[in-house]
Amino acid sequence: MKTGESDGLNQTPLDDAAIRREWRTGLISALLVLLLVFAAATRGGADIADPQTPQRLRGTGDLALVIERAKGSVQIVETSGNSRIAGVEGLGDLSHASAVFSRDQRYAFVFGRDGGLTKVDMLDQRIVARVVQSGNSIGGAISQDGSLVAVSNYEPGGVKVFKTDDLSLVADIPAEYGNGQRSKVIGLVDAPGHRFVFALWDAGEIWTLDFDASEKPVVTKYEDVGRQPYDALITPDGRYYIAGLFGEDGMALLDLWHPEKGVRRILPDYGRGNEKMPVYKMPHLEGWAIAGRYAFMPAIGSQEVLVIDMATWQEAGRIAVHGQPVFVMGRPDGRQVWVNFAFPNNDTIQVVDAEKLEVVKTFQPGKGVLHMEFEPRGEEVWISVRDLDELHVYDTATLERKAVLPADKPSGIFMTARASRIGL
Amino acid sequence: MKTGESDGLNQTPLDDAAIRREWRTGLISALLVLLLVFAAATRGGADIADPQTPQRLRGTGDLALVIERAKGSVQIVETSGNSRIAGVEGLGDLSHASAVFSRDQRYAFVFGRDGGLTKVDMLDQRIVARVVQSGNSIGGAISQDGSLVAVSNYEPGGVKVFKTDDLSLVADIPAEYGNGQRSKVIGLVDAPGHRFVFALWDAGEIWTLDFDASEKPVVTKYEDVGRQPYDALITPDGRYYIAGLFGEDGMALLDLWHPEKGVRRILPDYGRGNEKMPVYKMPHLEGWAIAGRYAFMPAIGSQEVLVIDMATWQEAGRIAVHGQPVFVMGRPDGRQVWVNFAFPNNDTIQVVDAEKLEVVKTFQPGKGVLHMEFEPRGEEVWISVRDLDELHVYDTATLERKAVLPADKPSGIFMTARASRIGL
Repeated sequence: MKTGESDGLNQTPLDDAAIRREWRTGLISALLVLLLVFAAATRGGADIADPQTPQRLRGTGDLALVIERAKGSVQIVETSGNSRIAGVEGLGDLSHASAVFSRDQRYAFVFGRDGGLTKVDMLDQRIVARVVQSGNSIGGAISQDGSLVAVSNYEPGGVKVFKTDDLSLVADIPAEYGNGQRSKVIGLVDAPGHRFVFALWDAGEIWTLDFDASEKPVVTKYEDVGRQPYDALITPDGRYYIAGLFGEDGMALLDLWHPEKGVRRILPDYGRGNEKMPVYKMPHLEGWAIAGRYAFMPAIGSQEVLVIDMATWQEAGRIAVHGQPVFVMGRPDGRQVWVNFAFPNNDTIQVVDAEKLEVVKTFQPGKGVLHMEFEPRGEEVWISVRDLDELHVYDTATLERKAVLPADKPSGIFMTARASRIGL
Repeated sequence: MKTGESDGLNQTPLDDAAIRREWRTGLISALLVLLLVFAAATRGGADIADPQTPQRLRGTGDLALVIERAKGSVQIVETSGNSRIAGVEGLGDLSHASAVFSRDQRYAFVFGRDGGLTKVDMLDQRIVARVVQSGNSIGGAISQDGSLVAVSNYEPGGVKVFKTDDLSLVADIPAEYGNGQRSKVIGLVDAPGHRFVFALWDAGEIWTLDFDASEKPVVTKYEDVGRQPYDALITPDGRYYIAGLFGEDGMALLDLWHPEKGVRRILPDYGRGNEKMPVYKMPHLEGWAIAGRYAFMPAIGSQEVLVIDMATWQEAGRIAVHGQPVFVMGRPDGRQVWVNFAFPNNDTIQVVDAEKLEVVKTFQPGKGVLHMEFEPRGEEVWISVRDLDELHVYDTATLERKAVLPADKPSGIFMTARASRIGL
């Protein structure tokens, strides 16, 4: 703008109105540019933004992601004040979904039933990357250093591994066995040493992927581990990988400190037995509970919680419960174990005293209790009650309900503290 | 600005130069106002700010706070790229200091030697509250729900408890014993149920503060637990509180699941013995290591790491090491135990194989190795090397050094993942 370059003495001669128009145009342009820059700036942090806009600049240690299974959306909530922060839509089929978190706890990686892998920015409250990487997937895991995310697929059966940065494909591991058939993959977890471990339902095998040396993983296969592994877990120290078996009794155990010893069978007297009791819903093993030397697991097909002595890997007892257990979750201090159940008992929660090995509380939050997640130090637990479209928050000491939040057909609840845990 | 109110037709008559000056003044004023607003806006979030300005909008799961003991400052670093984010000064005497974190992992509470309690906003990178609450303090803890922060004081001996919101005083518990003397307080930890537990050096007592019911805590005192408890720890499940004894052999154990059973003595054959070996630096118990059923602790006065069977609380072995151990820290998967040492051996680190119970690596990072902190899933460990003014980051699988960062006389390193752990 020439007229602004000097004090006005050497300007090109223009009539007064033209000068004023030019000044005004310049001023308006400058204002517009600044407003645009200002708008861009406030997108990056919202301390002074519209009060309707959720605050972005905040810690991420108390965040959680809630799956809304019917809508294909997720809620971002916080557990300090127990409130909803935001919703994010467009994640595809979340009828069976789970999530893991980046090591900075800003990003969630959501595994959808339809093979969708979606990276959600929980501070900016939006999807930042999404790939549909298979036709049907069942879950995933994030590597120890946070650089890789792996997905276990039913169709086509196998595991795909992506960079967490941009979801670019790093490795594609078809779960081939026998005469080139492909198996459904279940029970995928991360393990120390930048490894992933998973089981092959159709093949009866356990495989490890070792990314320690490079982006090309070393695959190690353990065959004949047992018929139809249906889910698996890894102990919190990342040492023992244990797969439950649907097709026969017992469980399969791999000691990752000594992979050379191979997979061994434990708990030979436990299982669906000769009668093959019907299973109304596959139990989840991931949420198992540990108190001292004992581990608590959902028994498959029977209305019992299994107690296992981890020093010997022998069965140490069974606790009769209200229905077929689905999740058996330990309060972080290990003193309580919370259990939910398969249909038709999925309106109920039972709390087990981990020392007395007995049920101390039974209550009905409502129909469709699908998941529970304890706050990291265990003072409260969040429960999704699908048919009420509600999340319930309970004080774990008094067992009183502290908060109810609306949610559309909620299922899985995932807290960011998982980012700092092995195998979650 | 009158001349801007219309299209120029109805303006007050002014000469051309005056009109131009007025426009220009108006434009410059508008620009200045917008720049100020813009500057205020970008303080709230810095995605587009000056590249010199550290980014504020970010996850907090990979942050750590490093004490710079001589300058009274802290560094904020991140463990994903292993880089420095910012420094914050003005925390007083940090010659012996530690930190805990708010449950959202945004705020650090730093306990200084001079009784200073400082709340640092790690995203805004500044002090938001500070009180000098005693003449000489030794550490602190944050309650299970994150609402209270407690400080253990030498002078005057006792515990003060503050709201984490604003550091307003909630409770003042003088550590009185005998004829009204006051004892130094050590080994303060949080426990499930909104409790704090600590020990009284001069009195030989262990006290619990229970805030479960209200802001007025219930104090429970256990007398005659042993002479001169010098530090203490709580097991990761928050069940067992164990105090080391300086004045006699053995350790004091309180089962917080059964406080009615009182404190019992364990490890009667362990201690400084009749000869009362000199102790060059008090070992820290907080960082003890657990692998399976075994716990590893620094032996006081001798060049050994103590191995304890947690099923029986009997001594299970001793591992000869390079010097008097100060910190004995377990890698999060429990397979390795890292040990540093008191002067004159404080230039050395030893790595113990937790299964073979033997030293597998000895190396010298440099003089003044004061602290170690593992990243939450254990792939790397950070070490402060005071006399080199450096932080070293090691890959825990290869034991290779991955990064070196400058720091002024660094001591304690505290990662935000502690916020989600009981007793840290």
